[in-house]
Amino acid sequence: MPRIHFQQQLAELKDKILAMAALAQQAVQSSVEAYLQRDAALCLYVRENETAINTAQRALDEMAYELLAKEQPMAIDLRFILAVIKMNADLERIGDQSMSIAIRTRDVIELEEVELPVDFSAMGEYASRMIRTALQALLDGDAQVADTVRLMDDEIDRMNRKAQADLLELIQRKPQQTPQALNALLISRNLERIADHATNIATDVIFWIRGADVRHTLSLASD
Amino acid sequence: MPRIHFQQQLAELKDKILAMAALAQQAVQSSVEAYLQRDAALCLYVRENETAINTAQRALDEMAYELLAKEQPMAIDLRFILAVIKMNADLERIGDQSMSIAIRTRDVIELEEVELPVDFSAMGEYASRMIRTALQALLDGDAQVADTVRLMDDEIDRMNRKAQADLLELIQRKPQQTPQALNALLISRNLERIADHATNIATDVIFWIRGADVRHTLSLASD
Repeated sequence: MPRIHFQQQLAELKDKILAMAALAQQAVQSSVEAYLQRDAALCLYVRENETAINTAQRALDEMAYELLAKEQPMAIDLRFILAVIKMNADLERIGDQSMSIAIRTRDVIELEEVELPVDFSAMGEYASRMIRTALQALLDGDAQVADTVRLMDDEIDRMNRKAQADLLELIQRKPQQTPQALNALLISRNLERIADHATNIATDVIFWIRGADVRHTLSLASD
Repeated sequence: MPRIHFQQQLAELKDKILAMAALAQQAVQSSVEAYLQRDAALCLYVRENETAINTAQRALDEMAYELLAKEQPMAIDLRFILAVIKMNADLERIGDQSMSIAIRTRDVIELEEVELPVDFSAMGEYASRMIRTALQALLDGDAQVADTVRLMDDEIDRMNRKAQADLLELIQRKPQQTPQALNALLISRNLERIADHATNIATDVIFWIRGADVRHTLSLASD
């Protein structure tokens, strides 16, 4: 009976990390949308969403701590709970990065609108896909899916480097557009950071699964 | 007897996180030094140091997991171990940020040396002091010291914003120095990120101490 209760709590923990991931993805998409559409109302939404993320993070952390304190989770469950605590921190920081984009967008809206040589929509979608894939890896306990996230990170690094080079070229060609180009440079960097956090999540999934496997093998050997 | 053994292991965990913090501080100082002195050999050192940090991080994580799996730490010890796991991740990312500075420095060395309107030495020392103070807060279990780190973060944010504004102004005044200015802009941002990680560590210390206090109060109430 206590074990059944424990499994229910683990399932609840999974639901909570999913809800947290949904908030984080929402933050990424809304902040990029706000920047592209120069939408001040959407910037405000991202800031409110960030408060919700912080609250959700604390609640999830507390629940994970309670589980560790009151139950004595076995190795595989222990690693899962620890992976959730780490992911939770990464998702919260994805919220922070999205808020940075929203705050910067408030500055951008004051500036003249110019054409920029960066496909932010593609970058935002790509980063968002990385978060989604990392979460899928968690839900399915699939280290191979998690590995694909780590490969995706190379692509967004490439996008970010290309954005930097193209924006540098723009600044030299049209110095009067320097403020817009610098804001774009930093937003590209925020998106690259968001992708890094998704990669951290994927790494935690791999650590959880492979670590559990190792322990499983060891316990078989000692039987 | 097992409790004494447990306390010894906790002390060892504390030693390990201190060693990890020393590596991270070393990385920050060396990367800023490499950038300021245009020292390619020091860049290489930062990269090797980063490998050492990654190895230390994994060893520390494993030790923390073992402690959680084999012992049944009481609430205050449990929170301490979880705080150490989170700090460990932040210290590893401080190593990553330092390596970004070292990699960028390799590009900078190829460019003509120019005078830049940013005091990187001050920023680097400030970020390093934040790491040191956050660790002190952990060692002393002092939430007030941890709070000062959070205040220090405002100052480095201010330094970073000033660097951005001054570099923007430089680009507009001397467009031919744009590559150097952009590299400086991104290095300033790396230092601001390093300070963020120190702030995360401080937040974890507060969470550990205050959380433990709350539990203590609760257990007194139920006695």
